Amino acid sequence: MVKYTYMFGAGQTEGKSDMKNLLGGKGANLAEMANLNIPVPPGFTITTEACTHYLANKGLTDEMQTEILAAVEKLENATGKKLGDNADPLLVSVRSGARISMPGMMDTVLNLGLNDTSVEGLSSKTENPRFAYDCYRRFISMFSDVVLNIEFSKFEKALEAQKKKSGIESDTNLSVDDLKEIIAVSKKIVKDEKGFDFPQNPQEQLFMAINAVFDSWNSQRAITYRKINNIPGDWGTAVNVQSMVYGNMGEMSGTGVAFTRNPSTGENKFFGEYLINAQGEDVVAGIRTPSEISTLEAKIPDAYKQLIDICQTLEKHFKDMQDIEFTIEEGCLYMLQTRSGKRTAKSATTIAVEMVEEGLIDKKTAVMRVTPAQIDQLLHPMIDPKCEQKVIAKGLPASPGAAVGKVVFTPEDAEEMVEKGEKVILVRTETSPEDIGGMYVAEGVLTVRGGMTSHAAVVGRGMGKPCVVGCGDITISESEDKKFYVGDLTISEHDYITIDGSTGSVILGQMPLIPPEINEDIGMLLDWADEFRTLGVRANADNPEDAIKALELGAEGIGLCRTEHMFFEDDRIPVVRSMILSETKAEREKYLAELLPMQRKDFTEILRVMQGKPVTIRYLDPPLHEFLPKVFELKSHLEDLKNGSAALPQGITLEEETERIEKMIDRVVNLHELNPMLGHRGCRLGITYPEIYNMQTRAIIEAACSLHKEGIVVKPELMIPLVGHVRELEITKKDVDETAQKVMDECGVQIEYTVGTMIELPRATMTADQIARKADFFSFGTNDLTQTTFGFSRDDVAKFIPLYIEEGILPVDPFVAIDQEGVGELMKIGVKKGKSAKPDLKMGICGEHGGEPSSIRFAYSIGLNYVSCSPYRVPIARLTAAQASIENEK
Amino acid sequence: MVKYTYMFGAGQTEGKSDMKNLLGGKGANLAEMANLNIPVPPGFTITTEACTHYLANKGLTDEMQTEILAAVEKLENATGKKLGDNADPLLVSVRSGARISMPGMMDTVLNLGLNDTSVEGLSSKTENPRFAYDCYRRFISMFSDVVLNIEFSKFEKALEAQKKKSGIESDTNLSVDDLKEIIAVSKKIVKDEKGFDFPQNPQEQLFMAINAVFDSWNSQRAITYRKINNIPGDWGTAVNVQSMVYGNMGEMSGTGVAFTRNPSTGENKFFGEYLINAQGEDVVAGIRTPSEISTLEAKIPDAYKQLIDICQTLEKHFKDMQDIEFTIEEGCLYMLQTRSGKRTAKSATTIAVEMVEEGLIDKKTAVMRVTPAQIDQLLHPMIDPKCEQKVIAKGLPASPGAAVGKVVFTPEDAEEMVEKGEKVILVRTETSPEDIGGMYVAEGVLTVRGGMTSHAAVVGRGMGKPCVVGCGDITISESEDKKFYVGDLTISEHDYITIDGSTGSVILGQMPLIPPEINEDIGMLLDWADEFRTLGVRANADNPEDAIKALELGAEGIGLCRTEHMFFEDDRIPVVRSMILSETKAEREKYLAELLPMQRKDFTEILRVMQGKPVTIRYLDPPLHEFLPKVFELKSHLEDLKNGSAALPQGITLEEETERIEKMIDRVVNLHELNPMLGHRGCRLGITYPEIYNMQTRAIIEAACSLHKEGIVVKPELMIPLVGHVRELEITKKDVDETAQKVMDECGVQIEYTVGTMIELPRATMTADQIARKADFFSFGTNDLTQTTFGFSRDDVAKFIPLYIEEGILPVDPFVAIDQEGVGELMKIGVKKGKSAKPDLKMGICGEHGGEPSSIRFAYSIGLNYVSCSPYRVPIARLTAAQASIENEK
Repeated sequence: MVKYTYMFGAGQTEGKSDMKNLLGGKGANLAEMANLNIPVPPGFTITTEACTHYLANKGLTDEMQTEILAAVEKLENATGKKLGDNADPLLVSVRSGARISMPGMMDTVLNLGLNDTSVEGLSSKTENPRFAYDCYRRFISMFSDVVLNIEFSKFEKALEAQKKKSGIESDTNLSVDDLKEIIAVSKKIVKDEKGFDFPQNPQEQLFMAINAVFDSWNSQRAITYRKINNIPGDWGTAVNVQSMVYGNMGEMSGTGVAFTRNPSTGENKFFGEYLINAQGEDVVAGIRTPSEISTLEAKIPDAYKQLIDICQTLEKHFKDMQDIEFTIEEGCLYMLQTRSGKRTAKSATTIAVEMVEEGLIDKKTAVMRVTPAQIDQLLHPMIDPKCEQKVIAKGLPASPGAAVGKVVFTPEDAEEMVEKGEKVILVRTETSPEDIGGMYVAEGVLTVRGGMTSHAAVVGRGMGKPCVVGCGDITISESEDKKFYVGDLTISEHDYITIDGSTGSVILGQMPLIPPEINEDIGMLLDWADEFRTLGVRANADNPEDAIKALELGAEGIGLCRTEHMFFEDDRIPVVRSMILSETKAEREKYLAELLPMQRKDFTEILRVMQGKPVTIRYLDPPLHEFLPKVFELKSHLEDLKNGSAALPQGITLEEETERIEKMIDRVVNLHELNPMLGHRGCRLGITYPEIYNMQTRAIIEAACSLHKEGIVVKPELMIPLVGHVRELEITKKDVDETAQKVMDECGVQIEYTVGTMIELPRATMTADQIARKADFFSFGTNDLTQTTFGFSRDDVAKFIPLYIEEGILPVDPFVAIDQEGVGELMKIGVKKGKSAKPDLKMGICGEHGGEPSSIRFAYSIGLNYVSCSPYRVPIARLTAAQASIENEK
Repeated sequence: MVKYTYMFGAGQTEGKSDMKNLLGGKGANLAEMANLNIPVPPGFTITTEACTHYLANKGLTDEMQTEILAAVEKLENATGKKLGDNADPLLVSVRSGARISMPGMMDTVLNLGLNDTSVEGLSSKTENPRFAYDCYRRFISMFSDVVLNIEFSKFEKALEAQKKKSGIESDTNLSVDDLKEIIAVSKKIVKDEKGFDFPQNPQEQLFMAINAVFDSWNSQRAITYRKINNIPGDWGTAVNVQSMVYGNMGEMSGTGVAFTRNPSTGENKFFGEYLINAQGEDVVAGIRTPSEISTLEAKIPDAYKQLIDICQTLEKHFKDMQDIEFTIEEGCLYMLQTRSGKRTAKSATTIAVEMVEEGLIDKKTAVMRVTPAQIDQLLHPMIDPKCEQKVIAKGLPASPGAAVGKVVFTPEDAEEMVEKGEKVILVRTETSPEDIGGMYVAEGVLTVRGGMTSHAAVVGRGMGKPCVVGCGDITISESEDKKFYVGDLTISEHDYITIDGSTGSVILGQMPLIPPEINEDIGMLLDWADEFRTLGVRANADNPEDAIKALELGAEGIGLCRTEHMFFEDDRIPVVRSMILSETKAEREKYLAELLPMQRKDFTEILRVMQGKPVTIRYLDPPLHEFLPKVFELKSHLEDLKNGSAALPQGITLEEETERIEKMIDRVVNLHELNPMLGHRGCRLGITYPEIYNMQTRAIIEAACSLHKEGIVVKPELMIPLVGHVRELEITKKDVDETAQKVMDECGVQIEYTVGTMIELPRATMTADQIARKADFFSFGTNDLTQTTFGFSRDDVAKFIPLYIEEGILPVDPFVAIDQEGVGELMKIGVKKGKSAKPDLKMGICGEHGGEPSSIRFAYSIGLNYVSCSPYRVPIARLTAAQASIENEK
């Protein structure tokens, strides 16, 4: 026979703390406290199995009812009171308690067991009619609210009406008559709302409350919460039925909540608040202002001392900061709950590090105590949570942190304003590589279009710059007047806004920001993390500044150095364009020769910064038309030249310039692609224009050779993008090796380098064995792989991804966290095939997923060697990688 | 010890016809003829193994040389002559002979063994100095050409010079002195070109010739041919060394080639030609005009009769039409070669069918005798091969058949011209759904851009309309003057051109066309094919006309009925646009209600045509912006309205129309996608706008119910496109079922229908088990699956795919034939996972690959139930499917 109830307290405890799956968190810890001889009002827990049984049977079975009544009887024997006794009634609280705390579940009913008769018994027995009727009043309103689903405000109104009528302000001043009046009105509300009288039978009250808890497991809010947090629907919740103790029995009674350490700062100092002469919900309700916990010492010294002792016992026992609830009944302390306390990011690290120093926990435990999200939070400024926010629009939280600045609409305006010493937020429909300058100087970026891996999002995260993207709520004015609209609001250029890239909020005005708190504790914790992790952590960095930042934040190398960004710099883009517009290979090579020293300088600087550490450099990847202006821009420039509103370049006639621009228009039209993401890019460029890749090889190897001559160790890893067929790699690698050898011969130096490939197309995963034979390493490009696996364009998904997530079609944006069952399955096949051909093949991830915790865990689980992410996400990756290793050991 | 030589003829034959892999086709069949007691000049075959050994060793090993000389000795014994004998020299021919006939291989050296001395012996022995010196002259020029790589024209010039000098016209009139002069000049050419004298040692001549044959296996032309035809490089070629017989010994000598039946028509009548007093190459060289074979009877009756007998023997023996070569030496017939004869499509079917009727072969053999390409050829008009073609440009052969017409540049012009009774070729940069009307009336379509599955190609094949796409050689004038350019040529509107969609050629002027020859033989053959195949064959058809054509051509159902084409018809597109521009669901539903009766009519007609057979209807798939005009079109129309050059709609003011158009511009801009192929389309539309799919469901089910009431059996299969996640299918299927049930309740009829899904995204293949649980069928959309697996946009690949194929990166355009190792691997996983969840799940292909032979075989091999293709490719699919089954039995 299945056992559905477990007693706790009064020397008959049946559970313990490791039975959370069966008893829920609250129930298991109540039992554990009882086992530790900590005073806990006796009671019993109805198991989570009972809940699933209840839901399957659509009600309590006879068997369950019988067992619950038997548990009640045991409780009656333990307390010497009887449920429904008219003279000395047993009152109980009924509380839900799932494995983990979950919003949307029925919370608490206190004082259950009271009715019109027993309230008088309670009054006589306690010789405290005010107390008794106060309990009954509270019970009716709470029960009606959470069990009968009557709006709580109706009862509040009745209370307020009575207080007004009697001319009193505080609830504690209500007289017995006031309370009786309120009870009468409350009962009438129930009758009016439900058509039946407030239940008088305590057993019926109990079963109704238990049913309500079980039913609340499937409330819409609970279901939504479970979906978001990946909590299985079949866990169920437990119910805790516990004999009441009363904090509302006078000045030597009270109730409170506390933390064993400061949950905000982490300081090892008892922290909490309490109310004298009150029941639990009064602290939460905020009607009376609770007192700071230390003042309790003066009021009820013995109970306070006992509370401190118990807290120490609990912290030592659970080896973690505890969040507790207690009640003092006429000087006597009872513990109602203990659990690991929620804490801020800062306090989490401080507590973890200090507990190691105190010898309470070991380093591994400390590493497990801080979440990657907390680390992320610590590395970005945030809006002061004490300030009220006027959120005018919501977009996708693309790059965390908050930023304040004046609205500008073009990168040029951004740069101009910043030169004047202003702070700006760049607001764009979507960003393109040409906006980089403006993005770089802006405090933050807000775009109307684009998903979590749109250009703005990727570059924003790369720069550690707050970024809200895909904010379809706003409309940028099409005309020249530099405004944007949100509903009825018009925001003009130079108006202040604040964006929060951690939440996606756009706020009108300047919000005060709290700077990132990077402290020694975090450094210590991450050093410990490095001790435990086996997964390498690299950074994506395209320039020396990013590389320096990456090293600071603990990166072990560069996993992705994109070379295209280098092509957009002001002094290069004209040469790049001339190269693209060349009609012959010879002409193209002439312009490539001009680009060579510039690229060589790029690589020299990055390799110098990263000396001794590997640097993976990816060859040019985007389609060439990305480097050319848009047709309408060219046409309008041509108009301007013709009507004299734009100046001709020095020494060029209008005819010559017209011809040049018309040629460019032809080329742009010719290069136009319907789906550039699936177009002429990546190694397809390297194959059709080998001279471009050859120039890049030469630049890298020349840089490496000259550094080598200086005695600097260089480890360049050359990476071919978008390989779908092994022949593409063979052909490009052959060119790379030939050029590299030629350069090394010229320099008279031999350096070590490797040639690998991105695995970012489904076809590459399917033929990974063939590709592995020709590759020194694989780097999974999970962005592109996600695009092709789903058939999603990351630039266009904003039109339906939000709905998909809302409807639960996708649990999470696959551009944020790797879709393990689709994209991940392909990756697994790629890894397996790759290793089958080359068992020691080095493999990593360099997509945006490399800094996302669930994706990092996945990378670890499929046996990758490293992840690579934006520099600012390196600490997150270090921590997550360590956590994955530690979990795996278990 | 490996045996490298096999004797044939003279009673010592060692090989037979099933040893083609070792002896090559020619050698094996020479042996076989000897075995059949057919007169074959004795000789020996050096094996293909010898070739691979030679290539690996970079030369003939001593062992091989010894064995060859031993074979020569056997041949000397058999013929009673000795190689290099000055009095009665053994002369031999040396010919290559791979497993299958292959261009690029060294062809033939005749008369090997002659030198300055033995030529005199031959002269005395035969008492025919003219013959002897003619042989020597021929030998020097042939050997120099094929072994020494001296240009043959140099020797031809020497011959011509001598003829001119002696004042004679025909080679046969050359005197001995003339021939001696030519020999002297020829030898001098060799000395001048090579620096050494013409080899006089017959053994050296022989080894040089053998080496030349082996080397020719790796000639560039042979390598290219092998690559194109997927012939392994390690097969190697055999060499046949055969004692000479002489067709040039006078009027009772001759040589010829013949077919046992007419290779052009298939008629069972001996067919061929011959030359009296000539050696083999004279027939091919075309210097003298050969005579029709039947006239030989009068000239050398015994030999002719024997030839006829031998041909009958050979045909009965090989059970196929034979292509033979023979030589008559002084009245005595020798066979030099027999092989299966190449034949036209028409003759292939006729021969196959007649041979079954004659009892020579069975039906299965007949089905295997005709290639899918031959069937394809028969179903389209072709350019009369007798006429010279002035090919001005080459594009991709997107839809087979030839077409002649006047050039037009817009669909409107096409329709206008056709109304006037003209035939036109529509020339476009690329086509879009709005061009359909023009494409439909045109004879053929020529586009500058796009690949084998671009819009023009797909629609062209669907309509069975000749189509050349991606013809980058031509440039359409950007201005309004309606011209296109190819190199220096300018082709104006209304100039005639001819396009050949089977070859990709564009030809100036009107070429005469041969109509498709669909005859009873083909019908018979396809009926036999249906007996043997297990793979179902359906057609892709979007309208009743296509459905009727599909039935005619043997389709067993519709595998893909696209609904979007229906939306483009003139009476619908305004409603479709209003629907898309709707701002509320209610407004959208209003326009959908207008579309409902139109769609219902479409489905009613198609289901009526296909009664009793399944019809798979795909829900709306393309992104909505495809139905809207382009922004620049709208803007220019607005301009036109404002300046009065376009008329306002009846009763609408300029302000109203301006507002409407501006709204449309906004919506078009809003719907714009960077990569529409990966955008808001397929079931993503059905989920974001369920009302659209609901209207389509209603239309289908209403049509089905009303036909059902008429007593017509309907089998609608409803197909959800672009499913990547099982939830997408669940949600859309739920809507389908609800709407279908509602409609059936309204109609008071229950009909059977199924709901399945396209599998066209890598993610769908990875999660096919989950999807299978919710799907009644899978239809692999191999076009889209190829796009996402490779990361290729089919509209953009023309920029690099041609280079990829040229460089051998891809053996074939993956949009033409399924890429089995990438796309195919995903399909296999999809099939396996799908069957693991639902063992009897019905699966098919409905991409363009469904009509391509290698893809059909692949579909069969992975266990699909059917393929679906354009109606005009149904016969190809029927034949290929049968061939796959028959091969599998073996």
